[in-house]
Amino acid sequence: MARNIQSLERAAAMLRLLAGGERRLGLSDIASSLSLAKGTAHGILRTLQAEGFVEQDEASGRYQLGAELLRLGTTYLDVHELRARALVWTDDLARSSGESVHLGVLHQQGVLIVHHVFRPDDSRQVLEIGAMQPLHCTALGKVLSAYDPVAHSEALESDRKAFTDRTVCDLDAFEQILDMTRARGYAADVEETWEGVASIAAPIHDRRRMPVGAVGITGAVERLYRDGELRPELIAAVRDCARAVSRDLGAGRF
Amino acid sequence: MARNIQSLERAAAMLRLLAGGERRLGLSDIASSLSLAKGTAHGILRTLQAEGFVEQDEASGRYQLGAELLRLGTTYLDVHELRARALVWTDDLARSSGESVHLGVLHQQGVLIVHHVFRPDDSRQVLEIGAMQPLHCTALGKVLSAYDPVAHSEALESDRKAFTDRTVCDLDAFEQILDMTRARGYAADVEETWEGVASIAAPIHDRRRMPVGAVGITGAVERLYRDGELRPELIAAVRDCARAVSRDLGAGRF
Repeated sequence: MARNIQSLERAAAMLRLLAGGERRLGLSDIASSLSLAKGTAHGILRTLQAEGFVEQDEASGRYQLGAELLRLGTTYLDVHELRARALVWTDDLARSSGESVHLGVLHQQGVLIVHHVFRPDDSRQVLEIGAMQPLHCTALGKVLSAYDPVAHSEALESDRKAFTDRTVCDLDAFEQILDMTRARGYAADVEETWEGVASIAAPIHDRRRMPVGAVGITGAVERLYRDGELRPELIAAVRDCARAVSRDLGAGRF
Repeated sequence: MARNIQSLERAAAMLRLLAGGERRLGLSDIASSLSLAKGTAHGILRTLQAEGFVEQDEASGRYQLGAELLRLGTTYLDVHELRARALVWTDDLARSSGESVHLGVLHQQGVLIVHHVFRPDDSRQVLEIGAMQPLHCTALGKVLSAYDPVAHSEALESDRKAFTDRTVCDLDAFEQILDMTRARGYAADVEETWEGVASIAAPIHDRRRMPVGAVGITGAVERLYRDGELRPELIAAVRDCARAVSRDLGAGRF
């Protein structure tokens, strides 16, 4: 099989570098981080800049990600079939549950949020479309890990960092959670990722019955979790939504 | 000056191709659209796919944009200083005007929407962050064309398409509008881009007093336009917002 194109791989590595950590970097930092000669790094950066993928701050000379990425990323959302099918159902779920709704798909080693409906209460909220969530401790991530073999191996290979005292990092305990998720048909996260926050998620399947994403609600643990358990009507609402989207994607009726 | 890197330019052209028109294309379509040999096109596509910039539909074999673009595009927004400074002020403008608010910057031949606050009335609305607007007929575009020389030349070079009967396409008439925009300090679009829709926008300047973006409201012409003129209190609210963001960016007080 033919090899991939080196200059493209290097350009992608630069964009990833600018997307993490510092986010505004000088030529020397970029070259040394990627073990490239300065001239090589500059040639790639200049081309990325000409195409709008990278911008250079006039005052400092530092590089950062460019506007063309936003334009292309939005177009990615426009052609996302799962997202298009889920729009109405996720609106309904936010209304019936009174909580914010997230739709996620596996991307690299995590969950990429491709749709986010705000909690319908006029409070100030930050849009999380395009953000990533960990696989091992969020409800969306556990659902993907339980149903999608690729997500499962990504979760096993990841370092399963502890975000709170309640994060499950141990491998056997994690596998037990995934068994339970498959047995129950949904996953939960009660303060395992964010203090004070709980989430509930269920899997979405396509016409070939393949797991293509997960949908769930996220909110204050006081509202989602009562008398030592997650409120059953919220679990039902999340599962109803996941089934409705799956049906819309052509999956068999349940 | 050294030349840019050809494989990178070709990869960027592929992503632009997949972002417009059909959005799901086979290898032959992509190769012929860009006048590349199929083997060359395949090598680039395979690398783009490995990096997550392109995805291939299993059933049809067609290519479409990939999830990594959404992740990177969102990170672009996170480091956008203008957007970060404008968040609170645009929320206030939406509340005081009762209309939706857009924040735009020049990108390529148009206005890229980098922030969008929904009209505060619980109606179903589509998020337009990452979408593009034309320079010659929207309020945001006229403001950028009037204040930013680069935007001005892009607008002159563009084909200034007519979207409605009221779109101004003629060059002299367009220049007069820009003169008026500079004289008044704001621009308007009354059904020149969308039937039934009006918008009002004002420029944002940074600490070097350079025009860095535009902010404006958009809504039903019946609400924004009354007795043959735009409602003065709405114009004032938009200009107040633009001044507040400019001050936050370090521009002198007005």
